[in-house]
Amino acid sequence: MIEIERKFLIDNTNITKLATNQYLIKQGYLSSVAERTVRIRTKDDKGYITVKGKSNESGTSRMEWEKEIPFEEALKLLSICEDYIIDKTRYLIPHGKHCFEIDVFHGANEGLLIAEIELSAEDEVFEKPIWLGEEVTGDNRYYNSFIAKKPFKNW
Amino acid sequence: MIEIERKFLIDNTNITKLATNQYLIKQGYLSSVAERTVRIRTKDDKGYITVKGKSNESGTSRMEWEKEIPFEEALKLLSICEDYIIDKTRYLIPHGKHCFEIDVFHGANEGLLIAEIELSAEDEVFEKPIWLGEEVTGDNRYYNSFIAKKPFKNW
Repeated sequence: MIEIERKFLIDNTNITKLATNQYLIKQGYLSSVAERTVRIRTKDDKGYITVKGKSNESGTSRMEWEKEIPFEEALKLLSICEDYIIDKTRYLIPHGKHCFEIDVFHGANEGLLIAEIELSAEDEVFEKPIWLGEEVTGDNRYYNSFIAKKPFKNW
Repeated sequence: MIEIERKFLIDNTNITKLATNQYLIKQGYLSSVAERTVRIRTKDDKGYITVKGKSNESGTSRMEWEKEIPFEEALKLLSICEDYIIDKTRYLIPHGKHCFEIDVFHGANEGLLIAEIELSAEDEVFEKPIWLGEEVTGDNRYYNSFIAKKPFKNW
């Protein structure tokens, strides 16, 4: 129930060609308060509700709880979410012993690309691919809950 | 997915003797915003997550979505909820063709008793028992999400 992850910017959309898998994500927030965000997500034809607690000081780890829910119910819940609904394609790119998730944002967040890597410990070492850009772990602006309030095009 | 209910105050704790069933409820809020409240509840040894949308003008009906979740997960989610956790005993009292739910609040809300009746239509007629007090449907102060922020003893 603890999620440990690090985030990086990406400036080259061509790297999506390395993906072994991809899916469409739409997500919105019932609460975007940092202490208790509640996210509704569809991932292709599946639905999820996710609760996340407050991040630790480095922004690397936080409590996470998730349940799969019927797709139709996720759509109804998305309809009462705050502000903007985030629309992105997630590409999975294996590298070394890990798998990077690259989010390519659409619509109001076109031009934003974020790579995430999930770790089993905060100090876990991982192989950095050359295409990995600046680290933005813990930078609030790159939280999806922030982007849903203030889309990239308005930065 | 639409919940239609009316609420009434109760001033006599003796009516709990009429109950055919009762259970202990603890509940907290991940979001208490009226447009999208997210409630975590335990009911005896069961757990639930519930999302409610905005009420209509009369305060009688609102969108409601609920999922049962493991009790232990509900306890972890309660630990990150806002402010106060509500603690109450719910008594079920059948009357005519309906069943009233009487919530007897404990702790910081000791002294507060609220009866609720769930209806299948806003104008559905129901038999009013003599012990039913003032109607408070649509009065925000009697929303549990409000009580969780400002307990009865501080009114």
